[in-house]
Amino acid sequence: MSAFDLVIRNARAVTASDIFDCDIAVKDGRIVQLGQHLPAGAREIDAAGRHVTPGGVDAHCHLDQPEPPPVVMADDFDTGTRSAACGGTTTVIPFALQHKGQSLRDAVADYHQRAEGKAHVDYAFHLIVSDPTPTVLEEELPALIRKGYTSFKIYMTYDSLKLDDGQILDVLSVAREHGAMAMIHAENADCIEWLSKRLEAAGRTAPRWHAHARPMLVEREATHRAIALSELVDVPILIVHVSGREAVEQIRWARAHGLNVFAETCPQYLFLTAEDLGIDDSYHGAKCVCSPPPRDKSNQQVIWNGLADGLFTVFSSDHAPYKFDGTEGKKPGGEEVGFRHIPNGIPGIETRMALLWSEGVMAGRITPQKFVELTSTNPAKAYGLHPRKGSLAVGADADLVIWDEREFVLTNAQLHHNVDYTPYEGMHLTAWPGMTLSRGEVVWDGKDFSGRQGAGRFLHCGTPTLVPRRRG
Amino acid sequence: MSAFDLVIRNARAVTASDIFDCDIAVKDGRIVQLGQHLPAGAREIDAAGRHVTPGGVDAHCHLDQPEPPPVVMADDFDTGTRSAACGGTTTVIPFALQHKGQSLRDAVADYHQRAEGKAHVDYAFHLIVSDPTPTVLEEELPALIRKGYTSFKIYMTYDSLKLDDGQILDVLSVAREHGAMAMIHAENADCIEWLSKRLEAAGRTAPRWHAHARPMLVEREATHRAIALSELVDVPILIVHVSGREAVEQIRWARAHGLNVFAETCPQYLFLTAEDLGIDDSYHGAKCVCSPPPRDKSNQQVIWNGLADGLFTVFSSDHAPYKFDGTEGKKPGGEEVGFRHIPNGIPGIETRMALLWSEGVMAGRITPQKFVELTSTNPAKAYGLHPRKGSLAVGADADLVIWDEREFVLTNAQLHHNVDYTPYEGMHLTAWPGMTLSRGEVVWDGKDFSGRQGAGRFLHCGTPTLVPRRRG
Amino acid sequence: MSAFDLVIRNARAVTASDIFDCDIAVKDGRIVQLGQHLPAGAREIDAAGRHVTPGGVDAHCHLDQPEPPPVVMADDFDTGTRSAACGGTTTVIPFALQHKGQSLRDAVADYHQRAEGKAHVDYAFHLIVSDPTPTVLEEELPALIRKGYTSFKIYMTYDSLKLDDGQILDVLSVAREHGAMAMIHAENADCIEWLSKRLEAAGRTAPRWHAHARPMLVEREATHRAIALSELVDVPILIVHVSGREAVEQIRWARAHGLNVFAETCPQYLFLTAEDLGIDDSYHGAKCVCSPPPRDKSNQQVIWNGLADGLFTVFSSDHAPYKFDGTEGKKPGGEEVGFRHIPNGIPGIETRMALLWSEGVMAGRITPQKFVELTSTNPAKAYGLHPRKGSLAVGADADLVIWDEREFVLTNAQLHHNVDYTPYEGMHLTAWPGMTLSRGEVVWDGKDFSGRQGAGRFLHCGTPTLVPRRRG
Amino acid sequence: MSAFDLVIRNARAVTASDIFDCDIAVKDGRIVQLGQHLPAGAREIDAAGRHVTPGGVDAHCHLDQPEPPPVVMADDFDTGTRSAACGGTTTVIPFALQHKGQSLRDAVADYHQRAEGKAHVDYAFHLIVSDPTPTVLEEELPALIRKGYTSFKIYMTYDSLKLDDGQILDVLSVAREHGAMAMIHAENADCIEWLSKRLEAAGRTAPRWHAHARPMLVEREATHRAIALSELVDVPILIVHVSGREAVEQIRWARAHGLNVFAETCPQYLFLTAEDLGIDDSYHGAKCVCSPPPRDKSNQQVIWNGLADGLFTVFSSDHAPYKFDGTEGKKPGGEEVGFRHIPNGIPGIETRMALLWSEGVMAGRITPQKFVELTSTNPAKAYGLHPRKGSLAVGADADLVIWDEREFVLTNAQLHHNVDYTPYEGMHLTAWPGMTLSRGEVVWDGKDFSGRQGAGRFLHCGTPTLVPRRRG
Repeated sequence: MSAFDLVIRNARAVTASDIFDCDIAVKDGRIVQLGQHLPAGAREIDAAGRHVTPGGVDAHCHLDQPEPPPVVMADDFDTGTRSAACGGTTTVIPFALQHKGQSLRDAVADYHQRAEGKAHVDYAFHLIVSDPTPTVLEEELPALIRKGYTSFKIYMTYDSLKLDDGQILDVLSVAREHGAMAMIHAENADCIEWLSKRLEAAGRTAPRWHAHARPMLVEREATHRAIALSELVDVPILIVHVSGREAVEQIRWARAHGLNVFAETCPQYLFLTAEDLGIDDSYHGAKCVCSPPPRDKSNQQVIWNGLADGLFTVFSSDHAPYKFDGTEGKKPGGEEVGFRHIPNGIPGIETRMALLWSEGVMAGRITPQKFVELTSTNPAKAYGLHPRKGSLAVGADADLVIWDEREFVLTNAQLHHNVDYTPYEGMHLTAWPGMTLSRGEVVWDGKDFSGRQGAGRFLHCGTPTLVPRRRG
Repeated sequence: MSAFDLVIRNARAVTASDIFDCDIAVKDGRIVQLGQHLPAGAREIDAAGRHVTPGGVDAHCHLDQPEPPPVVMADDFDTGTRSAACGGTTTVIPFALQHKGQSLRDAVADYHQRAEGKAHVDYAFHLIVSDPTPTVLEEELPALIRKGYTSFKIYMTYDSLKLDDGQILDVLSVAREHGAMAMIHAENADCIEWLSKRLEAAGRTAPRWHAHARPMLVEREATHRAIALSELVDVPILIVHVSGREAVEQIRWARAHGLNVFAETCPQYLFLTAEDLGIDDSYHGAKCVCSPPPRDKSNQQVIWNGLADGLFTVFSSDHAPYKFDGTEGKKPGGEEVGFRHIPNGIPGIETRMALLWSEGVMAGRITPQKFVELTSTNPAKAYGLHPRKGSLAVGADADLVIWDEREFVLTNAQLHHNVDYTPYEGMHLTAWPGMTLSRGEVVWDGKDFSGRQGAGRFLHCGTPTLVPRRRG
Repeated sequence: MSAFDLVIRNARAVTASDIFDCDIAVKDGRIVQLGQHLPAGAREIDAAGRHVTPGGVDAHCHLDQPEPPPVVMADDFDTGTRSAACGGTTTVIPFALQHKGQSLRDAVADYHQRAEGKAHVDYAFHLIVSDPTPTVLEEELPALIRKGYTSFKIYMTYDSLKLDDGQILDVLSVAREHGAMAMIHAENADCIEWLSKRLEAAGRTAPRWHAHARPMLVEREATHRAIALSELVDVPILIVHVSGREAVEQIRWARAHGLNVFAETCPQYLFLTAEDLGIDDSYHGAKCVCSPPPRDKSNQQVIWNGLADGLFTVFSSDHAPYKFDGTEGKKPGGEEVGFRHIPNGIPGIETRMALLWSEGVMAGRITPQKFVELTSTNPAKAYGLHPRKGSLAVGADADLVIWDEREFVLTNAQLHHNVDYTPYEGMHLTAWPGMTLSRGEVVWDGKDFSGRQGAGRFLHCGTPTLVPRRRG
Repeated sequence: MSAFDLVIRNARAVTASDIFDCDIAVKDGRIVQLGQHLPAGAREIDAAGRHVTPGGVDAHCHLDQPEPPPVVMADDFDTGTRSAACGGTTTVIPFALQHKGQSLRDAVADYHQRAEGKAHVDYAFHLIVSDPTPTVLEEELPALIRKGYTSFKIYMTYDSLKLDDGQILDVLSVAREHGAMAMIHAENADCIEWLSKRLEAAGRTAPRWHAHARPMLVEREATHRAIALSELVDVPILIVHVSGREAVEQIRWARAHGLNVFAETCPQYLFLTAEDLGIDDSYHGAKCVCSPPPRDKSNQQVIWNGLADGLFTVFSSDHAPYKFDGTEGKKPGGEEVGFRHIPNGIPGIETRMALLWSEGVMAGRITPQKFVELTSTNPAKAYGLHPRKGSLAVGADADLVIWDEREFVLTNAQLHHNVDYTPYEGMHLTAWPGMTLSRGEVVWDGKDFSGRQGAGRFLHCGTPTLVPRRRG
């Protein structure tokens, strides 16, 4: 009887720091040996010298999140994690959203129901705290942190979600006391409202005006404010989906001053621009409506620079799946109603990894190690899943991607999400996962999906480990 | 017969990205397997759950470097590498120094003679280019780069070594064309000369005036200039021994603008201040005379912050060993001659690792992974030795440190260099290497040195890998 | 009959740009000639070569402003303008404050009643907009601007006054459309509230904790936000009472980006520190409770630097007069109630000019011209009173100060306000107004006040002229 | 007999701080009265409500400066000051240039001979120190400063002129000790040489490559270095002809740190771009070859912003007149020889004032007062000529400009210099001096020049007054 369930031969293994040639032995879903000339496994896969990375950890994605009617998110835990797996992502962390007035515990229970028995890969939950009542702050949140929900998201915009500065301070205090990580969506709500009304009054309602309603200063201001609030409480934060120069400059300021301000960016800020929301009034621009909006070419370069030089800690998809056709998605009120009614968000859970490997690693902008750090190791550390996730190391879950480096043209037909478009239609890519393994099981072989609903398990998160712990 | 020469059991292995529990199997001096429950080795060492890191790569140290009489460097390749090994450093990269008028090839040949048969751990050479003649630029340097001398140091100060801006541009052009890494000692020579003369004229010649002759702006100016020159040539550089706020600010500016400007700092900028050069005219301050000089407490914090947040790429010793007593070292002209005649440099090759593990990792300022990155992985990458060195991974040399975490008071008597003092005498440390292995051989067991002269091999360096290579 | 009512002989006249020796002829309250050897006037004053500057314009002072009982402002238009005159200030611009729910027009009418027949020197009104209803925004404010109330103050803190970001945008839009100047009190209300509650809960209620409830980041954040809001609306703003480094850095950023962001500072940020609020729990610290609080010595230097190099446009007193003894002032609830109940503000209308002349001009930190610019010319320009006020020029009101340069120790007994202390008690000064003239009438002769209640006239303000007007 | 030689009626007088309506009385070449309804003068001029400003002080212009054959400067003191007068400039400060090996005293004597009896308006001399021997530093320079040559220029580039850092420190020390102002031409000579050789080697010799040989970083580096050197010596400096963003950023840094670093810019950085040096290889680009070269449109905006917000202290022409045709000027070696042989510099002494009044004041970018400050008052202060020059005030020289505001198209035929082109040919301007008076004499009446050779007098400069003097 073989000691190993699986041996992957001839891997060019990549971690966030190293690259080395070895065989990888798996038992009970975990990596148990890395070495040269390992004994045979019950199953053998020949990586043939190809790069093998840890599976992606998509730390910012929205699945089956409740929406105001008629809108419905196109992907649930079934289609969403299927799409993730086919794109090389083996852990997802979507959001259990608290409605105002709702118990946070109930929000979590509800979200578990949505996930139960559906996921193809492992998952954890971030919380979205929209109503930090004393009960939430003093009881529910501490209890949930202890139970493995160690991160939450704070919105500075969207009427139904946003917290005021005092509430943010209260929530950050809980993060500090109980060791949780706070993610912040940084845009100034009042500015957006003020601009949107003026644009509407001027009849400027086509999708492209969405970008004009959220100029960079709106993001910059909220980023500066979030930094100040975290500085006051003395707690790390992570600014999500940073879009360009002005917010980046604020974050650089914070880090240079020794503040633990981390940052995430997403593919849309590398590969889209505001022009993708339309240069005329075509409604097709709605496909790329997300917040913050993509900026311009020069800002793409700013983001690339931040990825390469360590400013950004995490690279996520911010997958928010809405169909273009029909009223469930991008047209809840039809095309006449205007940009303010377009659901914000774009699909990307399946394309995130390949886009960055193609245009980052293959194009020579970042090293393979930096790719692993951004897409897998750091998100796992940021949210208390490391080293079980995010690591190609002894003892880690055997969540792995074997890369195929080949040129092709991306089309939505190739993807496995439940969305009727991809913003990246027609892009020339040079790599795609040739195989994805989730805890040692092949879920994607480069052509076919072979996952199993319910195979994905809920992950209880521990304390974030981006920041060292004071010891002794 | 055992498949492995050595198995280290129960290691808490640390890489620059991950921490995991495993056994480590070694054969022919290399790591061949990492795993749980590995088969027995010919030799077994029980790490008992202690941290095991890659051995240190000290990328900035001076050994047996020729000096103007009567000065003699106290450490040669024998004592220097012995001291390194006892402090957890398994690779050293000292400098083959070209005198003005000398062939660079001859300088290298001479330095090989000094090293031959003496080193206890592996070593590579940086070059010091002090005379970039057309022959050097067009023939010698390219040939030496091809042969494995892929880094060189440029001095902006010291009369016998400094290059002018035009020469620096020429040398950087060679680095760009042939893929070498340029290290830069950034201080403005004219400013130092001008200040020194004024101090001397005012009778201010005690060691402490050394710090006044080299204020931070002298370093800041040269740092800015070095950045501009590298920007012009479009080539990475690495600013060595950065001492404080003003130079750090320049480097942050460069990185934010997408320039590949890397930086090194050293223990003296974390643990010493200008006051260690004396608050009165005592000559004992000469023990801490180095360039740039240590600054003040607030600058120590700036350096810690830069280590934690990724500004610094490399942490080296800048070991430059001069005895305090006798005329060979810190008193070449006696105590009356003045600060300008004190050889610049302090010993530190043995203390570098333990100082940073104690005050960095143990004190909670940086993670263990960051420690490995700074002391081992990044210097190996910066100078073309990775992944053979700097990596705890399959295929890498079995250069390892097993850490003892225990409190003690540091004294020079504990050290193995040939210097009669340590600047850190009396410091309370909380960790020291409990065992050092060089290519699988134990050279230090926490009490005794067990290396063998000549066991250390010369390493031919490859292309630096801090920056991704443009592919496809 | 003499052509002139008054001739001041042998003046060393100072404007914001020039210094020149001349006689100054006055007729009907205005300067009608500047020259050498002017004909005789009905009255003659020999300036004897002393500096003669335009009278001060104190653009930030509070007089007889309604307060919640039992608090009463100690100075009304009588004592306040008397104090101003004796200190060399000949124009004051206090605030007509709108209570929430109140008509802005009524607030102005009420404030006129308080001023009517009382003032000894000329005065204009800023508005405080605390309730920007549609009526206020669309009718009252535009009408009042047209009538000569061309500046208003926006509070970002204080529950009864603060506007949210959306309201600020609305008010700034009115300023843009109708050419008014917006002054902004920039502190983050939520942060102050959050900190204050925590301090109170910890029993930290002595006056000195006021400074801890308003650290610099609270000011920095609001300053950044105010800048962003003005950038969005594309309208100049003036940040009042800037206290130190962090807000200054934000304003420098704005100006370097071409934004018309102006700034004011006050004597308390040059001459007081947080230690003046107490280093123990003594209630005497209440005398220096103002917002933002004074910072530390190094921040004083930052403010001096900003005055000298043009960062600051205006130097005002922020005179807010509360008696220390009795319950009307600094002790409305007694000494036990805590710092949150101490009225914010300190007296300073009389000392502003002499403090800056002594420590600025006499000490060689700023030129006499810069003094005039900061204390008189620029505030007159900022608020639409130039060149009638703020100018020593033909046609300007003959509001003048003849300076005595002599050393003395300041005591509250020398002052003419109705407050029982000065924060500057015991300071050594080297200058004081030897004579103050308001529209050609001597109101202070260096020893005695000789003004007349009701002589001060209300000034209708025009369009601010700090920023050039686009012409032709 | 009239008390006044001249009365200018109905002036709209502008100073660097104020604007006021008055009559201006002149006697013996000086302004003796400003007032309403002044008595009659021997001569009367009706300004009819037009703006009247102080005459321009052009603090950076080159006249009859010795050049290597065959090059000859096209303007001497006759044609140069004629051109100045017709453009509203009434004081010029060209440069007495020391050749290496030459006595500085001789250089001054020689330059006096060139000026003697030729100038139409008043003039002073800056010194150019190219050979700071001990004699120069210890004897000549201090003696010349005492005699009224209180400013000197330091070149960081041009082989025949440049000083090394040590020499710059020596010269700045003299400035500090004797109260002189140092002007610095900040470009890195080695970088320019290195780039120029590479461009030449690649056959890139057309005029437009001049701009490529001097990119912004070349100016930025030298600016940073100049700032550091002045910081070390603790003495004010003035960086001349600042061209764009990168140098501006350095100067902002310096000022924010409290350093007395002043800056000058010139019309070419507002109205020309690098494209004016040619977008193909046409030799006509030589007409706009100057150093630093003009940048791009976005940098023009940076310069405008710096003029408006106080970053720039002085606006000069850097008039350096070379004819385009013939070998005396822009073609000393013919058109084939390449950009390195084109004399650096463009004409502009006559157009400076009108360009800034048109595009600055008339276009609403700066106030009339800011115009006066930049073109007249500040240069007079910077170089010790204020308040005799640079001031429209009692006691000042009656150097005045009465402005005509009218649209016209600029052509070289309208100008009075001895150069066969203007870089601004064809520009639409909206203002030109309608009359220029030099010490009360009309030298330009809007149509004709009426100056007199030799009427211009040499001005002995006093101590610069931009920085306050520490007193008592």
